[in-house]
This record gives sequence, structure tokens and C-alpha cells, in this order.
Amino acid sequence: MAEMLNRQGLREALQQTGEAMYHHRHPFHLKMHAGELTRAQLQAWALNRFYYQSIIPIKDSIILSKSYDGAFRLAWRKRIVDHDGDAAHPEKPGGIEKWIQLAVATGLDADYVRSFRGVLPGVRYAVDSYVDLVSKGTLLEAVSSSLTELFAGNLIALRMDAMRQHYPWLVSGLAYFQGRLTQAPEDAAFAFDYAFTHATTPELQQLVVECLRRKCALLWAQLDAIHYSYVEPGNIPPSPGVLQPEVSQ
Amino acid sequence: MAEMLNRQGLREALQQTGEAMYHHRHPFHLKMHAGELTRAQLQAWALNRFYYQSIIPIKDSIILSKSYDGAFRLAWRKRIVDHDGDAAHPEKPGGIEKWIQLAVATGLDADYVRSFRGVLPGVRYAVDSYVDLVSKGTLLEAVSSSLTELFAGNLIALRMDAMRQHYPWLVSGLAYFQGRLTQAPEDAAFAFDYAFTHATTPELQQLVVECLRRKCALLWAQLDAIHYSYVEPGNIPPSPGVLQPEVSQ
Repeated sequence: MAEMLNRQGLREALQQTGEAMYHHRHPFHLKMHAGELTRAQLQAWALNRFYYQSIIPIKDSIILSKSYDGAFRLAWRKRIVDHDGDAAHPEKPGGIEKWIQLAVATGLDADYVRSFRGVLPGVRYAVDSYVDLVSKGTLLEAVSSSLTELFAGNLIALRMDAMRQHYPWLVSGLAYFQGRLTQAPEDAAFAFDYAFTHATTPELQQLVVECLRRKCALLWAQLDAIHYSYVEPGNIPPSPGVLQPEVSQ
Repeated sequence: MAEMLNRQGLREALQQTGEAMYHHRHPFHLKMHAGELTRAQLQAWALNRFYYQSIIPIKDSIILSKSYDGAFRLAWRKRIVDHDGDAAHPEKPGGIEKWIQLAVATGLDADYVRSFRGVLPGVRYAVDSYVDLVSKGTLLEAVSSSLTELFAGNLIALRMDAMRQHYPWLVSGLAYFQGRLTQAPEDAAFAFDYAFTHATTPELQQLVVECLRRKCALLWAQLDAIHYSYVEPGNIPPSPGVLQPEVSQ
């Protein structure tokens, strides 16, 4: 039988899962950070990943809807504000708008990105599975699936350095990552506290780790689809509207 | 504005969609039919595709649940029998059991295949999106998504020839395809009749074609995931349990 982990033990179990399964080790990210991606490949990444960015406030709204605790909702609502922005502060765009800036910096048209028309079906299925996981799971499962934020800070710092070095023309689009450098660790700390407090049996602790695994798998699968379609020629699926790299790139 | 298509016109619109988007043109199938796949790659295909086979009676049960017409349900129920078999005729296994025979012919353990443990996350997301499409759609949309059967007969005939020629050790596993050679055209004719009769406006006819497109896309995405992970080395995702090709193969 599994034993109950203390705070440090649960943190280590999550860390091990992240080291093995988080997408910082995905071949597409390795190419990105080594400066080996073309502008067209970064376009494909920015455009497809925008679909993921766009569902974040949707899944967070589902999470809000699962809690009867106003203090929890107040704290978690921050994530929706971070991504959707605040009408009272139009000078501070939300994360979704900042991701559009990144996509535009790669050379894409903002309205085309917003339309989702160019998104790969495989990316869509992986992202939709996240909404499904959060919809069908308990509040503990839904919160635990956000624990990839434990590892986001390091990846984003590495990515920003790599982008400044290898893709200087992208620098105007880095505001999203700048914001996440502080948001992700704050969010991760809150979610970890919640998971540690509410996973009150060894089985529930295992479930927390399993939800992190599922989330890692769906992040990884998005990059699989992007890598398959845009790194080797001839693999773009025949779905109408899917992004076709420009010949000039 | 779109015009109303006659029976032949709708059939042609579906045919064009299938020619452009059905997975008979997928690079993985082209390699399969050219005899270029290894035994390990055919294992990966049989194991992952089993997840798709396994949800067919689930999506057909959802379709049954959407119809108030007993005659429709009686006709559509045949599909569940085709896949799950009939307790009164244990000598005639259903399609799912026949797919297990195929997987075993590639050298896989039947219980391992049945457990779904080895399935790629990307395949799971694509297949789950089919259940989602059928669950959330109208009966017309759900029926229309089955219209890929219009093209299954040709693909299966081609595949059986290719398997006999290039992978003779697989021949003991071909019973599934033998059955589908007659089932798929019967099912397709019924579904097409239903779609033609119930798509009573140009918009609904366009929706029928759109549902075929969505289905084609999710079949294609399954092969993308299999191709990405098992054709080039180093691309298998780090999800625990995912099929690892045996070194000896």
C-alpha cells in the first residue's frame, strides 16, 4: 500500500513526474531552445499554442464553478484576470492578448490567429481533453492538473533567453512570458497548498500525481502534433484552413 | 448561398471530401501498403487503433440513445452487434474480438492490448473527440460522422491485398477486415440514406459534409500520432506504459 507523504514528499513526487514528463524535454522545445526552428515553425507553434492559451480561462471558469468556498474562488479568479485582462486597466492586456502579440511578432495576422482556423486537429483534441479532464474531474483533480505551473518558471526563463539569442525578431512578442515569470510560481504555490491540504489519503495523493501526469501528456501531445506536421515536410494534415507555411520562409 | 443538392450531388460532395481528407492517403498507410512497415510499427498501429475500435459500440450506443424511432434503432443496433458479437453465436466473434486477433498476430499480448495501457495519449485524445462529437451533436451530425464508411471498403480491400503480399505473418489476423468488407458498405448506404433524407436544407447538407470532415480529421490525427512516435526514433512520449518497440524487432 502507498504511504501518506508529507509536504516535502508530495512535492518530490510531483517534481519527479515533471522531470520525466513535462514538455521542457520535448524534441520541439529542444530545437526551439537550440535556435534550430525556422520562422515558419515558430509561427506554427505560436498559432497552435494559442488554442491552448484560449481555453485557460474556460477551464479556470469550470474550476471556479466547482467550489463552494468563496475564498478559494476569489484566489483562483486571479487566473482568469491574468489571461482575460481587466476592463478597468486596458493599458495592461491579459495573457491571451499578449500571446496574440507573440503570434503577430512571428508574422501572423492577429484575426487569423483568433479565428482558430489554422489550428491542427491533433492540437485541438489534446487541448479539448484538458477541458474534459477539468469538467469531469473533482475539484481536487482539476486543481492538480494545473500543477505543471511548478515547472513553468524554469522553462519560461530558459525560453526567453533562447528567444533573445536565436530569434531576436521575436523580442517584441515576449510580454506574455515576462508576465508568467511571476504569475506561474504564485499560482503553483497556491495549487500545491490546495492539493496537499485536500489530498487526505495516500490514494488521493496518488490521484494528484496522476492528474499532473495527464496534464503533462496533453501538453506533450500538442508538441507532437506541431512537430510532426511542421518539422518534416509533407506531414501537414489535409484539413481545410490548417496553417500552410509560406514558401518565402 | 449554397444550393440544395440532389441525392447524386450530396454523394459527390461527400466523395470529394473523402478523396481529399480520408486517411487512405496518410503517409503511414502509404508506408503500410508499400510493405515498408516493420513488425514493431504494425504492433503500434494495431494496439493504438484498438482504442478506436473499442469506442465504436460506445459511440453507436450514444447514437441509439438519440433516436425516438424504433425502426432506426433496430437498424443501427446491427453495428453494436457487429462489434460486440452475439452471446447466442459465440462461434462468430464480434469486430473488437477480431481486432484482438489481429493485434495478437502482430505479436502482442491480448490482455495488454485490452488494458489500453500502451495507447498513445495523442490517439486517445483524437478518439475521445469522436465520442464527444457524437455526444454533443444532433442525431444527424452523429450519423453523418459515420460516413467515412463510404470509403472504408476500398481501403480495406487494398489493405488486405497489401498485407497478404508484404506481411504474410499477419494473415491469421485478417478476419476483422474480411467482415468489414461487407458490413461497411451496408452501413454506409443506410447512413447516407438517413443523411440525405434528414438534411432538408442546404445548411444541413453542409453540416453533413462538415461532420464527415471532422471525422476524417480525427482518423488522420490518430495516424499522425502513431507515425510521429513510431516511424522516426526518439519520439515516443514519456507517458508511463506507452508501447515500447521490442529491441529484437
